[in-house]
Amino acid sequence: MTAPFFDECLSVLKRTPAVLDALLRDLPEAWTAATEGPGTWSPYIVIGHLIHAERVDWMPRLAIILEYGQSRPFESFDREAQFRESHGKSLSSLLDEFGALRRGNLARLRALNLQPEQFELRGMHPALGPVTVRQLLATWTTHDLAHILQVSRVMAKRFKQEVGPWAEYLSVLK
Amino acid sequence: MTAPFFDECLSVLKRTPAVLDALLRDLPEAWTAATEGPGTWSPYIVIGHLIHAERVDWMPRLAIILEYGQSRPFESFDREAQFRESHGKSLSSLLDEFGALRRGNLARLRALNLQPEQFELRGMHPALGPVTVRQLLATWTTHDLAHILQVSRVMAKRFKQEVGPWAEYLSVLK
Repeated sequence: MTAPFFDECLSVLKRTPAVLDALLRDLPEAWTAATEGPGTWSPYIVIGHLIHAERVDWMPRLAIILEYGQSRPFESFDREAQFRESHGKSLSSLLDEFGALRRGNLARLRALNLQPEQFELRGMHPALGPVTVRQLLATWTTHDLAHILQVSRVMAKRFKQEVGPWAEYLSVLK
Repeated sequence: MTAPFFDECLSVLKRTPAVLDALLRDLPEAWTAATEGPGTWSPYIVIGHLIHAERVDWMPRLAIILEYGQSRPFESFDREAQFRESHGKSLSSLLDEFGALRRGNLARLRALNLQPEQFELRGMHPALGPVTVRQLLATWTTHDLAHILQVSRVMAKRFKQEVGPWAEYLSVLK
């Protein structure tokens, strides 16, 4: 089961930059800066978050598991980092940055040539406790999809009033 | 407000085929045939639904408003048509078909050269009652985003068990 699982993760992970590019690049700022209200994230903010995760979350955590196992807990992830790190950058440059980081990370992941038994190795999440390499890769993949979902939801909600009576048929607006 | 509104609709409508292409084409069938349980739709089924809507929903309904106003209610939309119409077709061919239909529909929409007052014209929805051209265009746009959301949600849920303890952080899995 490991080979299909790993290929299924890669098949999603490698395409996420292109999905977000198709969805957001050169879109009017009314869409890309929209939020779901105070304290919620715009599509622009989401891309900065994905960049930060490429830098400090997935591959660094995998490296910690492979080198230290459960003896060294992961660093905590800063869910607000993108508010500093995206500052002054255009959405286009963030999309470029995300795509380049993802390509590099997947090249390094493939080069690790993980063996079936390595997917069951455990690391230590600082809040969640023991987690496996397999769970880390599944979470990386699911996290991509969750943020594609979030971006499309934020955008859809902009038109909550505009759709008039059709709101009744659009569960995303409820 | 009409010019930005119309451009904002078009800016999303024209990119949806590319978004779904980036998300789904050549993806393992384990992803594209996944559902959220009995009676729910896979990504493959969603593309067939979008094709049917291109054929019989958005532009035909706009034409009815422009020609008949509220005097002729729209045809009811068949939400199950894709189960017949997609039969035997590959996902790649459905993505091609959706892209071609959307391009054609947007070319016809632009060619109508709708004037500001035409956005307020009313038609008659068979269940929802009076609706405007503006609401129809907003709904077309939001419907695209709602189905991108649905596809990413269906895919994310495949890994509900695989992510292990991280499920706690992934609200899409709840």
